[in-house]
Amino acid sequence: MVGGSSNKVDTVHETSIRVNGGSMEIHKVCLPPNKTTFQSIKHNFSEIFFPDDPLHKFKNQKPFTKFLLGLQYFFPIFQWGSDYSFKLLKSDVISGLTIASLAIPQGISYAKLANLPPIIGLYSSFVPPLLYAILGSSRHLGVGPVSIASLVMGSMLREVVSPTAEPILYLKLAFTATFFAGVFQTSLGLLRLGFIIDFLSKPTLIGFTAGAAVIVSLQQLKGMLGIVHFTPKMQIVNVLSSVISTEKEWSWQTVVMGMSFLIFLLATRHISIKKPKLFWISAAAPLTSVILSTILVYVFRAHTSAISTIGHLPKGLNPPSANMLYFSGTHLAIAIKTGIVTGILSLTEGIAVGRTFASLRNYQIDGNKEMIAIGVMNMAGSCTSCYVTTGSFSRSAVNFNAGAQTAVSNIVMAATVLITLLFLMPLFYYTPNVILAAIIITAVIGLINYQEAIKFWRVDKYDFMTCLVAFFGVLFLSVQMGLAIAVGVSVLKILMNVTRPTTVVLGNIPGTQIFQNVGRYGDATRVPLFFILAIESPICFANSTYLQERILRWVREEEERILANKEQDMKTIILDLTAVTAIDTNGLEAIVEIRKMLEKRSYKLVLVNPVGQVMEKLESSRTLELFGEKSLYLTVGEAIADMSKRFKIEI
Amino acid sequence: MVGGSSNKVDTVHETSIRVNGGSMEIHKVCLPPNKTTFQSIKHNFSEIFFPDDPLHKFKNQKPFTKFLLGLQYFFPIFQWGSDYSFKLLKSDVISGLTIASLAIPQGISYAKLANLPPIIGLYSSFVPPLLYAILGSSRHLGVGPVSIASLVMGSMLREVVSPTAEPILYLKLAFTATFFAGVFQTSLGLLRLGFIIDFLSKPTLIGFTAGAAVIVSLQQLKGMLGIVHFTPKMQIVNVLSSVISTEKEWSWQTVVMGMSFLIFLLATRHISIKKPKLFWISAAAPLTSVILSTILVYVFRAHTSAISTIGHLPKGLNPPSANMLYFSGTHLAIAIKTGIVTGILSLTEGIAVGRTFASLRNYQIDGNKEMIAIGVMNMAGSCTSCYVTTGSFSRSAVNFNAGAQTAVSNIVMAATVLITLLFLMPLFYYTPNVILAAIIITAVIGLINYQEAIKFWRVDKYDFMTCLVAFFGVLFLSVQMGLAIAVGVSVLKILMNVTRPTTVVLGNIPGTQIFQNVGRYGDATRVPLFFILAIESPICFANSTYLQERILRWVREEEERILANKEQDMKTIILDLTAVTAIDTNGLEAIVEIRKMLEKRSYKLVLVNPVGQVMEKLESSRTLELFGEKSLYLTVGEAIADMSKRFKIEI
Repeated sequence: MVGGSSNKVDTVHETSIRVNGGSMEIHKVCLPPNKTTFQSIKHNFSEIFFPDDPLHKFKNQKPFTKFLLGLQYFFPIFQWGSDYSFKLLKSDVISGLTIASLAIPQGISYAKLANLPPIIGLYSSFVPPLLYAILGSSRHLGVGPVSIASLVMGSMLREVVSPTAEPILYLKLAFTATFFAGVFQTSLGLLRLGFIIDFLSKPTLIGFTAGAAVIVSLQQLKGMLGIVHFTPKMQIVNVLSSVISTEKEWSWQTVVMGMSFLIFLLATRHISIKKPKLFWISAAAPLTSVILSTILVYVFRAHTSAISTIGHLPKGLNPPSANMLYFSGTHLAIAIKTGIVTGILSLTEGIAVGRTFASLRNYQIDGNKEMIAIGVMNMAGSCTSCYVTTGSFSRSAVNFNAGAQTAVSNIVMAATVLITLLFLMPLFYYTPNVILAAIIITAVIGLINYQEAIKFWRVDKYDFMTCLVAFFGVLFLSVQMGLAIAVGVSVLKILMNVTRPTTVVLGNIPGTQIFQNVGRYGDATRVPLFFILAIESPICFANSTYLQERILRWVREEEERILANKEQDMKTIILDLTAVTAIDTNGLEAIVEIRKMLEKRSYKLVLVNPVGQVMEKLESSRTLELFGEKSLYLTVGEAIADMSKRFKIEI
Repeated sequence: MVGGSSNKVDTVHETSIRVNGGSMEIHKVCLPPNKTTFQSIKHNFSEIFFPDDPLHKFKNQKPFTKFLLGLQYFFPIFQWGSDYSFKLLKSDVISGLTIASLAIPQGISYAKLANLPPIIGLYSSFVPPLLYAILGSSRHLGVGPVSIASLVMGSMLREVVSPTAEPILYLKLAFTATFFAGVFQTSLGLLRLGFIIDFLSKPTLIGFTAGAAVIVSLQQLKGMLGIVHFTPKMQIVNVLSSVISTEKEWSWQTVVMGMSFLIFLLATRHISIKKPKLFWISAAAPLTSVILSTILVYVFRAHTSAISTIGHLPKGLNPPSANMLYFSGTHLAIAIKTGIVTGILSLTEGIAVGRTFASLRNYQIDGNKEMIAIGVMNMAGSCTSCYVTTGSFSRSAVNFNAGAQTAVSNIVMAATVLITLLFLMPLFYYTPNVILAAIIITAVIGLINYQEAIKFWRVDKYDFMTCLVAFFGVLFLSVQMGLAIAVGVSVLKILMNVTRPTTVVLGNIPGTQIFQNVGRYGDATRVPLFFILAIESPICFANSTYLQERILRWVREEEERILANKEQDMKTIILDLTAVTAIDTNGLEAIVEIRKMLEKRSYKLVLVNPVGQVMEKLESSRTLELFGEKSLYLTVGEAIADMSKRFKIEI
């Protein structure tokens, strides 16, 4: 075909000259610097486990400085402790008292969510914040029990042990699960596997959280309606049918009181959202509600026997609970499983919250270090009658807005809880359970982030789908299943991206050395005699067969196009490997196979710009030897320039 | 810092001019053509399920041609049937007879490997090849039972049912597993999920096959040594201890006969490997051994009672076995599981073998269609007393070498088996079991591909590790576990690639518009005032946190380098997104977050060349709005040229 018409040949030369834009030097594709096997394993290892180079501060320092830095690394309190001033203390006291007013009702409520005695929630707001103040690196994290982890612990443990029939066993399991959560969190941090929590993608978390919030809210119907015999199941269908079938148990006094305070709490929340400066209104509302409702019930105690109250709470500090940990027996497996699931969920919340506020104040959080802090806090907590705690989003937001400067605000909060535990427990005797339900509903409603879901729909349909899967999985299957399926769906996306990579046809933007997708850049034109394909993915076992088939299809379609438009036949197929970031042995064989198939159709295959590791492997597998010289170029432009020159000689 | 010294500023201008290489037009980054949600879902769907565009032949054809093409599509026999000639028949008869001589002893041996009566192996070499000849699209595939699938079926079923204690139940389960293997294979093909077998990467298969070959060979010690009471377990430790503890059962006659024939078979194999033209020597050796050993045992039958023989085999064709399928009861789950595992393994072998020989003769195999052919063959097989069959590597190689031209060679083989079944069964009465063991050992030893493992070590350490994991997993855990772990390890590699993507610093190759890795291209130099980073991976939930930290670390290290070398401060950080092939909502937020962090350090962030979907998402998420104008360029060169111009104006 070539040479069949001298006109056509002339066109070719013109094109090649136009593409070159003058004389062009041909650059060699370099191999990466030689590395021994040990060096490259060491490099990969450090990229996987120490990407942030945590020891860079220690380089070229005196031994004493190193010691000091090490101390500061493990106990961040030494970092800010020395600069601590009265001014900072003032801010921290104010914010500490503010979060304490939120922490006390929240602690009681969330413990109920986990089917634990309310006092455990207060214990959990005392020891862990103190430990975090010493170990944690966030300055704004408000530490305590959180709704999601409480819900998950409650739902997982209740599947095997009834909290009402066997309260002591249930409590033992909860402490054991907390212990294992701590062990898991600390191990993740120590083994520098913190990136595992990244696999809970944002769509997964948003969907999961919204689903959990609906489940939690439905559970509160028990408290809001004053139902006595409620289903122990979590799924939406069971709960709704239980609510309807227990209609006779509903108590109107409870309903009236619950609805009134719910409206009050939602209104304060609404005000604080509209005017962020008035954040303290919603922060103070739960305690106000508790106090008001307790007074109401106390005053009308003769007429309100239908309203169930918290009742007697023991005075005094956290009792030790190390003897209640459970290291053998039939329920150990469920305790470990619950520990891992709640551990990873609370870690995700804690780290995400810490990072959010750190970013607002322009400091950095070391994820792995935070995991150790949270893990140690939970291990210690499990020995002092606390259940799973972490950095809570609502508490931290209030803490931040109230002007917290350092972790001292957590100490102030803990001190307030201490005073409550020592002296104020009898005051909660008449606190109605319905108010706790209202507080929980208000808290979890804020977790339903439908705006974000709408954004997913707009930006990324697959993320939206992942979010829906998590949401409905939690609602209709179970909390753990919903989470697991959503993680599976997220990972599937990564795998599908690799299994079915994009391949695009490139064309030259006239007058430049730029080659771009002809489907996207209207002025990008195909270069006669050449067919340029870019592969946009690593080439590996999961896509090597696909790529072979897809490239043959591209060539077939191009042949058909050329035939239809009566253009010049192509002679050379250029594979632009710029975006091929890795290759494995299957991939290398695919390249060889593609070359063989193309040669049988008498096309030449040329590779362009294999990056680091790909070039290395093309070399070590002797693929390049097979290709022969003049089949590897640094840029598409140079490949075309050089090949055109050679066509000219051939003709 | 800039403007602090007029010398420095001059250098900048010179650099920017040198980089530009003359006046430079700035090109706009285009959005991909607008697509509706439906269109893009349809496009993704067809790329996932119909990447090979199987209907392209049907486009613009008359209805009758369409019908004919459809018939040819489903029954490839119509494709080559009309051109069939006497010359082709001659080749096919020769190759058919050659593979029959291999198929008969192999069939009997492999059935024993699956703990099935030897006759089942012959049945399985009769019906399935006939069906494949009609449905299959490979011209060289030799169909029948294969060693790996036989081993896996035997080992999985024996875990729950003893083939000696409950032979009928065992047989039922084997047919049921075969049926489900067929259903699974057909569904994969119909649902166009054929790419699932790609997840068995080459290193996985090589390691797995070698491990299985060792297991199979060890199992043959029973036959080779004449042991009567052998362990039913598969793991290397159990087998070796069983061999030693049954020392008293060893029969010297068996050992002598077994070793002699094993040496004979291995020698013929060696000859055929050295001289591929003499392939028929190793192809004929098994049948020769069977005949010779049978005669020997018959002649010396008075003295060889210690040598166990096959004994009575029923004459006649495959009896129907549809009534033996098992669709309920306790063992259904294991039958389905076995079906899926053997189904996927036999599919992998069949497709790989088909592709290998198709590539040698330059035709293409449609994977999904082959799956339907193999699946239907197994479903029909399970109703006619056959167990799992597929394209066997050894048979196909012999078939190919013997000059097979079409699937008619399978028909010839089936006819030969038919004659054997009808008339020759009594001849096997005295065939010693030890000869079957020797045939199996010879066959599976060829599956240990240590050269390939050495290549993995040379080219890709991770592939080598995957191979080892599969090998030792099969040896020490179990066949299925070894396979599952190796697949897990392969997938982990993909995930790790995404979780820890490469980021490289780019420099300009003087006198060009080429920007390359400064670590790799010695002449690539950093451009003063700029810091250019290329991200080589999709940006998604699994790496968004890592990338944020890693980029900050790059910037920190660059600051330190600049300080140490007393160079000019950088002002702009350029992110080259050429190799970022996808982005999700987490990734978009990471970009925004990186920009925020860099702005706090008063650096400007500029994005370069976001490809298709990435550009689309940057737009739809309004990230670009946030970035403002002059922060998106098509090439690094244009970005530097334009920004430098603006610096000049600023100064």
